[in-house]
Amino acid sequence: MKTRKVGIIGLGHVGAHVAYSLAIQGIAAELVLVDPKESKLAAEVQDLRDAILYCPHDVKINGGTYADLGDCDAIVNCIGDIDLVASGDRLDELTFTAAQVKGYIHKVMASGFNGFIVNITNPCDVITNILYRESGLPKGHVIGTGTGLDTSRLVSALSLQTGVSPQSISAYMIGEHGASQMAAWSCVNFNGIPLSSLEHEDPKFAFDKPELQKRAIGGGWVTYSGKHCTEYGICSTAARMVRCIFNDEQRIMPASMLLDGEYGEKDVFVGVPVLLGKNGAERVLELPLTAEELANFHKCCDDVRKNIKTAEGIAPAECK
Amino acid sequence: MKTRKVGIIGLGHVGAHVAYSLAIQGIAAELVLVDPKESKLAAEVQDLRDAILYCPHDVKINGGTYADLGDCDAIVNCIGDIDLVASGDRLDELTFTAAQVKGYIHKVMASGFNGFIVNITNPCDVITNILYRESGLPKGHVIGTGTGLDTSRLVSALSLQTGVSPQSISAYMIGEHGASQMAAWSCVNFNGIPLSSLEHEDPKFAFDKPELQKRAIGGGWVTYSGKHCTEYGICSTAARMVRCIFNDEQRIMPASMLLDGEYGEKDVFVGVPVLLGKNGAERVLELPLTAEELANFHKCCDDVRKNIKTAEGIAPAECK
Amino acid sequence: MKTRKVGIIGLGHVGAHVAYSLAIQGIAAELVLVDPKESKLAAEVQDLRDAILYCPHDVKINGGTYADLGDCDAIVNCIGDIDLVASGDRLDELTFTAAQVKGYIHKVMASGFNGFIVNITNPCDVITNILYRESGLPKGHVIGTGTGLDTSRLVSALSLQTGVSPQSISAYMIGEHGASQMAAWSCVNFNGIPLSSLEHEDPKFAFDKPELQKRAIGGGWVTYSGKHCTEYGICSTAARMVRCIFNDEQRIMPASMLLDGEYGEKDVFVGVPVLLGKNGAERVLELPLTAEELANFHKCCDDVRKNIKTAEGIAPAECK
Amino acid sequence: MKTRKVGIIGLGHVGAHVAYSLAIQGIAAELVLVDPKESKLAAEVQDLRDAILYCPHDVKINGGTYADLGDCDAIVNCIGDIDLVASGDRLDELTFTAAQVKGYIHKVMASGFNGFIVNITNPCDVITNILYRESGLPKGHVIGTGTGLDTSRLVSALSLQTGVSPQSISAYMIGEHGASQMAAWSCVNFNGIPLSSLEHEDPKFAFDKPELQKRAIGGGWVTYSGKHCTEYGICSTAARMVRCIFNDEQRIMPASMLLDGEYGEKDVFVGVPVLLGKNGAERVLELPLTAEELANFHKCCDDVRKNIKTAEGIAPAECK
Repeated sequence: MKTRKVGIIGLGHVGAHVAYSLAIQGIAAELVLVDPKESKLAAEVQDLRDAILYCPHDVKINGGTYADLGDCDAIVNCIGDIDLVASGDRLDELTFTAAQVKGYIHKVMASGFNGFIVNITNPCDVITNILYRESGLPKGHVIGTGTGLDTSRLVSALSLQTGVSPQSISAYMIGEHGASQMAAWSCVNFNGIPLSSLEHEDPKFAFDKPELQKRAIGGGWVTYSGKHCTEYGICSTAARMVRCIFNDEQRIMPASMLLDGEYGEKDVFVGVPVLLGKNGAERVLELPLTAEELANFHKCCDDVRKNIKTAEGIAPAECK
Repeated sequence: MKTRKVGIIGLGHVGAHVAYSLAIQGIAAELVLVDPKESKLAAEVQDLRDAILYCPHDVKINGGTYADLGDCDAIVNCIGDIDLVASGDRLDELTFTAAQVKGYIHKVMASGFNGFIVNITNPCDVITNILYRESGLPKGHVIGTGTGLDTSRLVSALSLQTGVSPQSISAYMIGEHGASQMAAWSCVNFNGIPLSSLEHEDPKFAFDKPELQKRAIGGGWVTYSGKHCTEYGICSTAARMVRCIFNDEQRIMPASMLLDGEYGEKDVFVGVPVLLGKNGAERVLELPLTAEELANFHKCCDDVRKNIKTAEGIAPAECK
Repeated sequence: MKTRKVGIIGLGHVGAHVAYSLAIQGIAAELVLVDPKESKLAAEVQDLRDAILYCPHDVKINGGTYADLGDCDAIVNCIGDIDLVASGDRLDELTFTAAQVKGYIHKVMASGFNGFIVNITNPCDVITNILYRESGLPKGHVIGTGTGLDTSRLVSALSLQTGVSPQSISAYMIGEHGASQMAAWSCVNFNGIPLSSLEHEDPKFAFDKPELQKRAIGGGWVTYSGKHCTEYGICSTAARMVRCIFNDEQRIMPASMLLDGEYGEKDVFVGVPVLLGKNGAERVLELPLTAEELANFHKCCDDVRKNIKTAEGIAPAECK
Repeated sequence: MKTRKVGIIGLGHVGAHVAYSLAIQGIAAELVLVDPKESKLAAEVQDLRDAILYCPHDVKINGGTYADLGDCDAIVNCIGDIDLVASGDRLDELTFTAAQVKGYIHKVMASGFNGFIVNITNPCDVITNILYRESGLPKGHVIGTGTGLDTSRLVSALSLQTGVSPQSISAYMIGEHGASQMAAWSCVNFNGIPLSSLEHEDPKFAFDKPELQKRAIGGGWVTYSGKHCTEYGICSTAARMVRCIFNDEQRIMPASMLLDGEYGEKDVFVGVPVLLGKNGAERVLELPLTAEELANFHKCCDDVRKNIKTAEGIAPAECK
């Protein structure tokens, strides 16, 4: 029979961690890693294989090329350039990654690939849009981690503040995976109990919301400034999305997804709650935002749309 | 070091299933099974041991007596009488189980046991109350599965109706684990999105609530009438509670818990959302019920209180 | 994408436990249960669904008919008759189960099913042979649990005797899943260290082998006489086989498999070590048995062959 | 109740990966990370916390100091200096790490710590010896990953060669975690079937052993030269050891352990198979080596003994 097979494109700080997370959790039974840097590729394949004896699952790990991705059930796209990230210039980063992705996506599709794409490469919403347009894959089969990681940071901050497990907190960062993201405060609840109800009962829940949101967003900077990369949060986010699709979980989680009328928006990829199952992002869930929140959300969408526009003019790079 | 050890009292249809669920999930590292029927006990110990080679965890399983429970971290109490359940007379069942539990709880405590008790034995809320009073264990260290199983049935019915994963649904059956239980409809949400919002968007969510509640409650009868016992739902509920405590998960889930002012109630064990962590049920969460729901909840509490009163007069049975 | 889907035929004591074991371990993402007894089927489906909220995986569970098995990746065959087992007459049991299996296997194949069959129904080797012949599925796609359960009992007894985890013990019961099974003592080792080496070092390893073998084989009787069925050992064995195939694990474990020259035997299904992966039992591993062990093994094979012959004459039953 | 708590000392490339491996597998319920570099520590704590929402377990992760390790059940020791590793001078590395470890182990013990130490810091056998001597912890409570990682590389190479899952291969690199390590070829088997038996049956098993050993040992260099660190293999090895101890698994796996007469050696830590359970390394297993293998093993031990001697003269560093 066909095993669950995932391709990973790009083995910078993120890609190999996605592989480890998929392997140690047994989410994939087979992994194909693709990166033009041969010795880096060989190193990651070796290091990951050296983990299997002590992991609970017998995962097969191989290096490969775009041509080997044809029978993958999903691809996680993770390319990046650490020096460009360090420079802090988002436009430079966009220029680089958009050109790269445009350069190799047709090679990927030429392999016969017909699965799901989970994109991590930044600017996440913009690159996810390119992957969707250029791959020709069906809507919902191409998603981005988007505000999935930002949501995790928000929930982590809420958990530290309240003492409740992240798994019992429903909260969302939505919009751009970038500066204009926003917490949907009106919809935060604790396994069915709204924050608005708990804040009258217990001072731990009556915290300063803008302050906590700032802390949550600042989490990315804490990580980046101390280790010059981010690894565990983002790899776990992508692995969770793959798990939802492979197991047809029908769980609701945030992802960068094409809006097609939901929230009164169209033709833009941004972070929103989606239902993830065997058909990918099977639907967008509409949070009952306040009027103010909705206005902010529209601004997020406009920001992303501008960057999508910019990206359209970028020419594909030559990719081997 | 001390491993996570669970004692299980009573090996009818439920007890051995609790053992298997704890073992195959690796929630406990050691199990002690207690039942006066020697050949039944030996059979379950043997059958469970025969599973370990093919399970992901190396769990140790032994039979024992009340005296062997002293160093257990938790006990799951599961005694019952299948013929009494079949008779359908709840008072007969109460008379039997209350007498039994009163008969052996002091032997359990004499072992030096100082952990947590998760009670399954019916009538669940009443027996949990007896175990709490007679063990002298701290509040929150003695809980019942209560409406945990009923909640699972409600969520399962909601999942079938809407297509959303049970893990992305927050909903509660609260009150008595018995005829007067009630769904807290005003608090149902789908990972942060209220049912009241979704029912305007999608006909799948605009269902007949009393009808669905009837179906959920009827689930117990479907199971019982077809197999003359219930096993998987209840054993998974109890195992989940033990997991929350052992791992200090701080998750919110429904359990039968002593109310001490919450919901305007006192001195009664009923099913409510609790925060489960290393101190057991560390707090009761108050759902923002409607006035009508709250009135119904008080009726549930009154029903349980009457049975608690009845149970007080029952004398302990002789237990070997 | 296609999720991992398992069909289970027969919901006596074993079938529903196989379902629970597959679900709680997340081995399958979807289960279809088939049994002619409608209320029993509805009960097991309901009870299993009621477990999902508290399980780590979001498994879909449905009842169905033979016609619904077409897109299953594997089927676990579990029919039986508890009264015939109780009677202890192996020939009566064979007469019943062989007729049943012959009665429905063509309906299963007519559904378009083209996956793997793991057979539990007794007499296991004989019924596995029937399923292989009548289904027309490729060699290695039809296996039986065979001495998988007997091996687990042997390893469990070795673990109790020596204190070493079952997972660090390599030992096999081989041959018939029945009276003539035999322990391959010459090949027992503890993660690479032969028993023959350890028995000179430590008295715990210098035990009476025939006595321990007797105890291991007697384990089945301990279970059966105390609970009138066996559940956890056998369901975990079958679930482990499905896991090996679905994840392409390439692990070695005992199963009832068609011999085709290995051990100098042909045209007989018996318990031997096999390599389990995405093509089912991909090869038979030959243990370097002593001459005496090999002679005994041939006797086992002869016993099974006789029963296979007997089964050939049995006419298919009418199955709805 | 007390949860399973692990302290990790040193957050270079290895330490944070150990934390992730323990967290995502749910082996620990609580982690305390210790590193003098404040912003690195904050970064790793943040990044790991950002993973929890999408992990199967609710693990608590905090930064701390040596004084916070008192109630840990185990400590994984991971300090290192990446520039010294890059220099390739083993003596420089020893001089640095021995001084560091001597500088802080007394602070660790002053916290009241009384659990298990799993050492990764290189030279592994020598540093494990220092930790054992200076901590005063009982024999078997202080072990090193030793040839655990080398064994994983050997098994990975054997798996690639033969197609058999690593989990069905028993093989050991023993001796020094360094240049003089050796494969115990005479004891390699495949779930009970000796390599010596299989090599006559199937050409895949009749490979060139010295060549494969060279490839296995070279694996470390492939990883190191391509990514300038090793992460997944080593973190999974250490996590597996902690899991064995916490769950009292009684599994056999290789670790750096004090020999006390076994293999005719004394007073030296080297990689050998040990039985890992709730008392740590509860016994050393003696492989039935050939005379030639045993002679080589003695040479390994002599090499380590020399380095242990050298380390004795190194003065403790000042550690904050």
